[in-house]
Amino acid sequence: MKFSRKVQQCDLSPVRKFYPYERAAVERGIRVHHMNIGQPDIETPPVFFEAIRNFGGKVVEYAPAPGMEVFVEAARKYYQGLGYDVARDDILTTFGGSEALEVVMACILEEGDEVLVPEPFYPNYTTFVSITGAKIRPIPTSAADGYHYARRELIEPLINEHTRAILITNPGNPTGAVLTREEARLMVDIVKEHDLFLISDEVYREIVYTGEISSMLAFPDGAEHVAVVDSVSKRFSCTGARVGTLTSRNKELIHQAMKICQGRLCAATLDQIGAAALYNELGPEYHKSVLEEYTRRREAIVTALKKLPGVEFSDPEGAFYFMATLPVDDVEKLQYFLLEEFSDQGETVMITPGAGFYADPEMGRRMARIAYVTAPEDLTRSVELLGLGIEAYNRRGN
Amino acid sequence: MKFSRKVQQCDLSPVRKFYPYERAAVERGIRVHHMNIGQPDIETPPVFFEAIRNFGGKVVEYAPAPGMEVFVEAARKYYQGLGYDVARDDILTTFGGSEALEVVMACILEEGDEVLVPEPFYPNYTTFVSITGAKIRPIPTSAADGYHYARRELIEPLINEHTRAILITNPGNPTGAVLTREEARLMVDIVKEHDLFLISDEVYREIVYTGEISSMLAFPDGAEHVAVVDSVSKRFSCTGARVGTLTSRNKELIHQAMKICQGRLCAATLDQIGAAALYNELGPEYHKSVLEEYTRRREAIVTALKKLPGVEFSDPEGAFYFMATLPVDDVEKLQYFLLEEFSDQGETVMITPGAGFYADPEMGRRMARIAYVTAPEDLTRSVELLGLGIEAYNRRGN
Repeated sequence: MKFSRKVQQCDLSPVRKFYPYERAAVERGIRVHHMNIGQPDIETPPVFFEAIRNFGGKVVEYAPAPGMEVFVEAARKYYQGLGYDVARDDILTTFGGSEALEVVMACILEEGDEVLVPEPFYPNYTTFVSITGAKIRPIPTSAADGYHYARRELIEPLINEHTRAILITNPGNPTGAVLTREEARLMVDIVKEHDLFLISDEVYREIVYTGEISSMLAFPDGAEHVAVVDSVSKRFSCTGARVGTLTSRNKELIHQAMKICQGRLCAATLDQIGAAALYNELGPEYHKSVLEEYTRRREAIVTALKKLPGVEFSDPEGAFYFMATLPVDDVEKLQYFLLEEFSDQGETVMITPGAGFYADPEMGRRMARIAYVTAPEDLTRSVELLGLGIEAYNRRGN
Repeated sequence: MKFSRKVQQCDLSPVRKFYPYERAAVERGIRVHHMNIGQPDIETPPVFFEAIRNFGGKVVEYAPAPGMEVFVEAARKYYQGLGYDVARDDILTTFGGSEALEVVMACILEEGDEVLVPEPFYPNYTTFVSITGAKIRPIPTSAADGYHYARRELIEPLINEHTRAILITNPGNPTGAVLTREEARLMVDIVKEHDLFLISDEVYREIVYTGEISSMLAFPDGAEHVAVVDSVSKRFSCTGARVGTLTSRNKELIHQAMKICQGRLCAATLDQIGAAALYNELGPEYHKSVLEEYTRRREAIVTALKKLPGVEFSDPEGAFYFMATLPVDDVEKLQYFLLEEFSDQGETVMITPGAGFYADPEMGRRMARIAYVTAPEDLTRSVELLGLGIEAYNRRGN
C-alpha cells in the first residue's frame, strides 16, 4: 500500500518517541523525573472543573464550528484586557494551539512553498508544514545571540518567491527567547514589505522574565498579515483540555479557515465551557503568581545547571524551556542510556534531545531542550540525575 | 495575500452555513425545528458526566498521543464484544470521527489522487479529501436502488491509476443505506484485488433497522486494506465530546498516522475519560434501547412524510438520515425562505439542501437530507411545518 510523500516527510515526535522506553523504566520500578515535556505540575485552576461540573445540559451537543459564544467572548475579553482589540469574528476555536497551526498552514501553503522558522524550532512545526507539501526554511540563530532572530540581514536573504510566511514562537519554545518590542515591530515590517503572513504562536504569552509583553496583535497596521495562535494549555496548566484559538483580523484567512473548522465540526464542548471560565475568572493576579512560580523554577534550574561541568546555555527570557549543550557525543544516545541503563537510588531523568529541533539533526546532536515545569526541589534533583547520568554515560565509553 | 489552491477547493459546510440565518430567526423569536443536523436529543448517558466529575487529578494533563490507556482499552473491548479482534496498537484516538478521516486522508492521498465515494455523500468528505490536493470521484447511486452501491459493474469502471481508496459510510449518511454482509464482502474483495484502501466510516454502527451488523473489521483477510473510522458522538449521543478512533490492522498505516497524532499532541483528556466510561458501562441493552427509540422516530417521520404530496424517498435502513426529493425548484432557496420569511404559529423548520451531497450540485438541487433525531411528536410537527413551508414557498412564486 502506498502512503503520501507528505506524511513520509514527517517524523515521529522527538518529544514523544521515548514514551515506550519511559513506560518500560516505570514498569521496572524506576522513578522518572521529567525535564523533557511541557507538562506543568501546577494545578489546573478549580474554576475549570467547577464550570464543567456545573454544566446543566442533558446532552453534550456539538458546539458551533468557530467556537461556543461563551468561550469566544471570553477569549475576546482576555485580548481586550491586554489592550488588543479583536472582534468575535476574528477568533476561531481550535483543538489546542496545535490545530490552529494545522488549519492556518492548510490555508496558506501549497506544495513547494516555504515557511521561514527561527531555528531551533518546535519539532511539530515540521509536521504541520510538511503535511501540506511545503517545507520549513530555517532562520539560523545562535546561543551567543540568545537565539534572537529579528534581524533584517538574517531574514531577508532567506525570502524568495516560494516564501509564504514566517512562523515564530514568542516567547520561544525551545529557546526561551522573547522578542523585544522593537524586534516585534521589525517582524511586522518585514512581513508587510514582503507580503507574507506572520504566524505568531504565543501560547506562553504570560511567562516572560524580561518585562517584554508584546503580542503581534499589538500592531494594528499588521492586521492583514498576522495570525496569532493561542491556547489555554500552558496559560492555565490544563494541557489536556485542548482548547486553542486562531485569531486574525485578515477576514479572508478566517473565511478560508472556517471551511476547515466546519469540516471537522467543532472543538470539544465541555472543555470550551471550562476554558471560558478560566479566561473569565482568572486575571492578571493569577498570571503574576504563575510567573513568580516559574521564576523560582528558572532560578533553581539555572543555578543547578551552571554547576554541571561542560554544560552550556544562555539564560532563558520566557516560556519554560531553553536549549543546553551537554558534554556528550549524542544526546539521543544519552537519553536511551538514561532510560534503559542508568539509575541513581531508583531514579532517572528525561530531557529532550536537541536534534529534532533542527532541520539538520547534526546541528542539535549535542544539545538538549530542558523544560522546567516541576517544583524547584524536583528540578535540583533532576539536574543532579542528569549530571550523574552524563558521568556514567561518558565513563562506560561509546 | 495568497491562499492555497487546496483550501479554495473546499467549501463552507452546507450543513452549517445556515447557522447565522437560524440565529437571526431565533433572535426574532421564531422556534426552529431541526431536521437538518445530526444532533440527537437523546440524553448523554449520566456515566459520561460521572466519570468526568470523578476525575481525581489536580492537573488536566496531556494524554498519550494515541489515546489514554483507559479509553483505548475500552474501545478494544467494545470491538471484542462485537466479535472483532483488534489490538490496542491498532487503535488511535482522535478528535471525533472527523479527525480520524483527516488523518487517514493525509496519510494516503497525494495531489492528483482520487478517492471513490458513493454519491450522495457526507459533504465534509470533500473538505477532508480536497485539503490533501486529491479529489472525490463519485460512485453514482440512485433512490430506485435504495442508494446501494456495492456492485462490481458500478465501481470497477471508476478505478484508475489515480485511485487510492474507497471511502464509505455504513450505515449511510445521508442515504440511510446499509450494506448487506454479501455487499460488505464484495467491497473488501474489490479493494484487495485493486490494492486500495477501504476507509469505512461506521459511526452509526448500532443504528440499523434491517438486522445487518457488518463492520469492515469482520473480514480478517482485508486487514491490510481496511481502516475503520469510529466515534462515540452518535453512538452515545454526545456529539460535543469529540472522541473518535482510527482503527486499522495495517501497521504501516498506524505508523504513518501516529506521526500526525503526535504532531497535534493528544485528544482531550476529560472527554476520553468520559468516553471510556461509555464504552465500559453501556452494552448491547443500551444500544438496543436507542435503536428502539430511533425505530419509533423513523416510523413517525416516514409516516408523516409519505403524506406530503410530491415528496419522494426510499425507506432508510440505518443511521438517522435519508434523502428526499421535495416538490420545489431549489431546496437551498426553500431553506432560506423557511428561515427568513416563513413561520407557522411562530415556528419554522430546517432541513439540509441536497446540493452539497453531490459532486455536481445540480444533481441534488431538488433534494434534501432529512435527519430524524428528535422525538416522534416533534418530527410530526417538523414535517407539518415542512409541508406548510413548501406550499407557501411555491405559492409566492420564484
